[in-house]
This record gives sequence, structure tokens and C-alpha cells, in this order.
Amino acid sequence: MNQKLGRSSIQLEQPVYILNSASIVGSKEGEGPLGLLFDKVGEDDMFGCKAWEEAESTLQKEAVGMALEKAGLTPEDISFLFAGDLLGQSMATSFGVSSYQIPLLGMYGACSTCGEALTLGAMSIAGGFAERVVCVTSSHFASAEKEFRFPLDYGNQRPLSASWTVTGSGAFVLGQDKFCGSGKARAQITGMTVGKIVDYGLKDSMNMGACMAPAAASTLEQHFTDYADQPEEFDKIITGDLGKVGQRVLIDLLRERGYDISEQHMDCGLEIYDGESQDTHAGGSGCGCSAVTLSAYILKQLQEENWRKVLFMPTGALLSKTSFNEGMSVPGIAHAVVIEAVS
Amino acid sequence: MNQKLGRSSIQLEQPVYILNSASIVGSKEGEGPLGLLFDKVGEDDMFGCKAWEEAESTLQKEAVGMALEKAGLTPEDISFLFAGDLLGQSMATSFGVSSYQIPLLGMYGACSTCGEALTLGAMSIAGGFAERVVCVTSSHFASAEKEFRFPLDYGNQRPLSASWTVTGSGAFVLGQDKFCGSGKARAQITGMTVGKIVDYGLKDSMNMGACMAPAAASTLEQHFTDYADQPEEFDKIITGDLGKVGQRVLIDLLRERGYDISEQHMDCGLEIYDGESQDTHAGGSGCGCSAVTLSAYILKQLQEENWRKVLFMPTGALLSKTSFNEGMSVPGIAHAVVIEAVS
Repeated sequence: MNQKLGRSSIQLEQPVYILNSASIVGSKEGEGPLGLLFDKVGEDDMFGCKAWEEAESTLQKEAVGMALEKAGLTPEDISFLFAGDLLGQSMATSFGVSSYQIPLLGMYGACSTCGEALTLGAMSIAGGFAERVVCVTSSHFASAEKEFRFPLDYGNQRPLSASWTVTGSGAFVLGQDKFCGSGKARAQITGMTVGKIVDYGLKDSMNMGACMAPAAASTLEQHFTDYADQPEEFDKIITGDLGKVGQRVLIDLLRERGYDISEQHMDCGLEIYDGESQDTHAGGSGCGCSAVTLSAYILKQLQEENWRKVLFMPTGALLSKTSFNEGMSVPGIAHAVVIEAVS
Repeated sequence: MNQKLGRSSIQLEQPVYILNSASIVGSKEGEGPLGLLFDKVGEDDMFGCKAWEEAESTLQKEAVGMALEKAGLTPEDISFLFAGDLLGQSMATSFGVSSYQIPLLGMYGACSTCGEALTLGAMSIAGGFAERVVCVTSSHFASAEKEFRFPLDYGNQRPLSASWTVTGSGAFVLGQDKFCGSGKARAQITGMTVGKIVDYGLKDSMNMGACMAPAAASTLEQHFTDYADQPEEFDKIITGDLGKVGQRVLIDLLRERGYDISEQHMDCGLEIYDGESQDTHAGGSGCGCSAVTLSAYILKQLQEENWRKVLFMPTGALLSKTSFNEGMSVPGIAHAVVIEAVS
């Protein structure tokens, strides 16, 4: 039986396999430390489109198409699509994935959406509701700046605590069989911990790492409690986009609660750019950041059995330009997924 | 076993029960034909708050609180919360439900979100991942006008094809047991059909009924195909907010495909206001429209066994102000849930 574990976690009776996946990124991400690992790198960040939002839609479309192709599947083989992005009314998704005509379940969890989509996608398979699903999320530096901050043409200055939204999209084909047309699955999902909204009252949208770190700490502590686990259980505990500031806050918060994750912690936002040479300040962020890092880097490590088991936990800052302008705080949320190597 | 049925549908092995539910609406909805059925009607539409968005958050908070109270449950009894609204980055949800500290899965399906939340909520229970969940959605006339159209102070004219966003929120407690503290469940969910994005290229955000009707027709046709059903199977086939124009388009589109639903069709947007006296043009709309009508009116009919079986199918228009301003079309989506009386 699938099992509810403790307050917020799920243990799957049978693992759900990540059959294959794909990543596409913009030029800046292509120049970063993971650049050679992505399936596709754009020459510029417009991807042949006339608007930033359309470019982001193209990222989702390409990521899904490549993931299906790599898995040797067609859209008709996919029961449901779990998809989301950061834009108002998930605009990148609405115009990105419609051509596949796969039944769609739209998600919103800010930058945690990749964790949410994998959670619900895996549940739909483990529950017997679907044979195969695709999970996809995206973000785009320029569409996000327009949506949340200032027009790029302002050239406004960014504090060192600000993060740089990743231009990219990652798509994941999940299924119940260890093997599919393309060979052995890349990894397996064995459990998950669903996060709560955590609001420490911080209001600085230029320091989202600090806003999200308490939510990451909450989900992680809950995971350890529900599973009666310790950080040593994992080769890596991977947050989505806490960046430099958030990483420090997370490690400190967990130390206060009796867990030392300083050895295991890794943040996708800190892996994707070379902060020194790429001028990205606190690190990368966005719905696409954790997704492309998972597809290109984390799954590769699991496939090569350099790592046996990781906790993948994208983190989301639940702000909008309206909430910011109305002086509201920036609550956070984080969803954790246990991903293991396929033996 | 739970079963995938055809391309897009799910048949549950064991029904998932709607243990209880609650609705809260604004003053205009309180004056409408269903006014006496809602659990709570606001005196004004600010609900004691300083901003429209905050008022909408209050709606979600109150709806969840009332639904839990009516079911005799506390937030700790709830495994997961499936929630969403229409605002950018689901702002009403982020600030509405955080105080309950229930693990949250955020949804976005525009006005179809209530169908999506019930679908995923029921799946999480039927799959053995949760004992009880709450599904909640909301909309607010003023926050929606601000988000999608013009400032209210402009006093802009609205064509007769425009709909009126419902101020309201409906919350539903789902569980696996036919009985809970408060007595017999209100109804049972036995299956669902997940919709695809359907885009006929219409661009008129003041005629969302026409934009959404093709998606409703697609989901409905798919449902009949997957289940090998006919419209006569249902006492009512209920769309969320197609309104007068959309209803006509839907009935015509389905007639072309060999299905006559003119006898069974009902639209929440046409039930909630008296179009003549309340000057609401095409009808009510929004994430809250279908949710409050389901809670206050549809479940009542099922509970009193005036109806035995309905297909509840909220419809969503996937537009944002950015997509509208960039000249994009308004794609639609609709998710259908089979809801039956508890025998």
C-alpha cells in the first residue's frame, strides 16, 4: 500500500520511475558551469519569438518534446501533463504545451512548482490513475523581471542578495516501468514531503533566499520527523534556489533544530552559475532553475551512481507584484521529493 | 483497482466522499436566486479588509474554516489542501490559507480550478496518499477586474457578452469514509475527466463564454467516449461559468458531434444571478462561481436525492492581462467530475 507517513509525507509502495527527461536553457546558463550538460542551449534568449513570454512558452514546448523523444514516446502515450510557471495565470504553460493535446493539470507553487509537479505526477502513477505522465516547469529571466520587478530597460541596480531568474525549462517523463523504449529509467521517486506555507514576515523581494529558507527548514524538519531520518540518509539534500544568503539561513535554522545538513546541502541556484564571473549575485532562481539542474546534473549523478539517494526540494517565494506593492510579506513554500538511483 | 478510462478519464474503485462543504459570498450573490442557500453572505465586499485581494484571501480562510467546522474536523485532521484562485501567483491562496498550516498543493486552471482541485484531491485519497483533504477556490469581482480588465473607477462599459466575476469561495472536505463526525457525507465522487487546452483562436476577453465553450465541448465529448456514456446518464451536466453565450455555443458544438445536452445542461453562472434584475449580462464567472454553487445548491440537490448523478465541469479561460495585451488568443480548459448522491 502507498502510505501516508507522519504529518506531511508519503511513502510509495512501488517506486515511480523517471523514464527520461530533458532540459533547455538560455545563453547565460549555457555559459555556466553546467553548460555542457544541458540538452539544448539557445543562441539568444528569444528562441525565435517576438515576446519574452512566448519565448518561455517555447522552452516548455521544446523541453516536453525532447523528453518524449528521448523516452521514445509520443504525446498519446502520456496520460496527464503536470505543468506550471511563474507568470500571472501561468501564461507560459497555457501557450507552451497546448499543441501536445495532453490532458493538463496546471500547478502553481512559485519556484517550488517542479517539486509539486513531480509529487502529484508520481501520485497519479502510484495510485493507478495513469501509466505515464510528464511534469514540466519553466522560467525566463526577462519575463520574470517584467512580471515581478522592473522593465529591463530601466537598468535598475540589484542588491547582492538578489537572485537571477534562470531562463530554462526541464521536463520529466514518469512511469511505472523500470524500462521504457529508451532503456533503463534515469532514477526513481520513492517518497515525498508536501510543504506548508511558512511566513516569517520578511518583505524583501530582492532577498528571496531569506524569505524561502524558513519554508525549506520546515519541510526538511518535517521530512526527518515523518521518516525518522537523519541528513546522513542522503548523499545530497538539494534546494531549488535559496542562493548564498538562503543557504546560510537554512543551515543555521536546521542546526537550531538539531540537524546538521552542512555536509549534504547543495542548491541548484548556486550550481547553475559561476557567481564570480557571471555577476548573478546570490545565485539562480525560478521554476526552471531546479528543473534544468535536476534533469541535466542531478539525474546524471544518480544514473552514474555517484549518488545513491537525494532529497530534491525546490523552494518557492509566494509573492506577486500586487502583494509586494500592497506591502505584504513574502511567504515561502518547499516540496521535497526523495529520488534514488535505479539499482 | 482505480482505472484509467480511455484517453482522459479515471474511474475510482471506491468513491471518494464529499464529507462536508461550505460557501461564502459577497452581497450581490447574496441578493441572487441562491442567496438563502449560502452559509455566509458578506455585508459588503471588503469583508473587513483594506484591499480587494485581502478580502478574497479572507473568503478562502472563512470557507475552509466553516467546512472544517461543519465536518467536525480540525486542520490537523486534513492531510493536504488543494487550493487556487484567479490572481497572479495565486495571491488570494497564499495569504488566505497559510494560518491553517495544512500541507498545500497550489493549483491553477483559471475558472476550472475547482474541478482540478476536486480531481487531484479525490485522486490523493483514492490512491491511499491521504485520509482527508480540503479543496478550496475563490474569486472576487473587484480583485478580478483589477487583475484582468480595468480599474473599477474607470466605470468602463461592459458588452452583453461579458460575465460578472462572482465574489465567493467554496471549500470541500473529501474523505474515504461515508460517515464523519457531522453525519453522512453530502455526496460522492466516482470519476473524473481531465481536460486539454482547446484554443479556437478567439481573442475577446469580454466574451469568455465563447472562448471556453469549445473546451467544455471537448471534455464532455471525451467523457462520453471514455465512459461510453450518453447525456441521459446524468440528471444534470453542469458547467462552471459559460453564461448565456457560451451555453448556446456548447449545446450547438455538441449537437454537431451527435450529443444533445439541451435537456441536462445547467450553468453555475446562469444560476447564481438573476440576469434581468442584477445587470450581470452573460452570467457569473470565476473560480468561486462553480465552487459556491456546488456547495450551496448542487450538493443540496444530491443530498435531498432530487438528483442522483451529475457531471460537474468547471470551465477556465486561460488568459492573463499580458497575454491579452500581446494580442494572444484566449484558450480554454474544462475538468469534469462525476458526483453522485450517497445511497
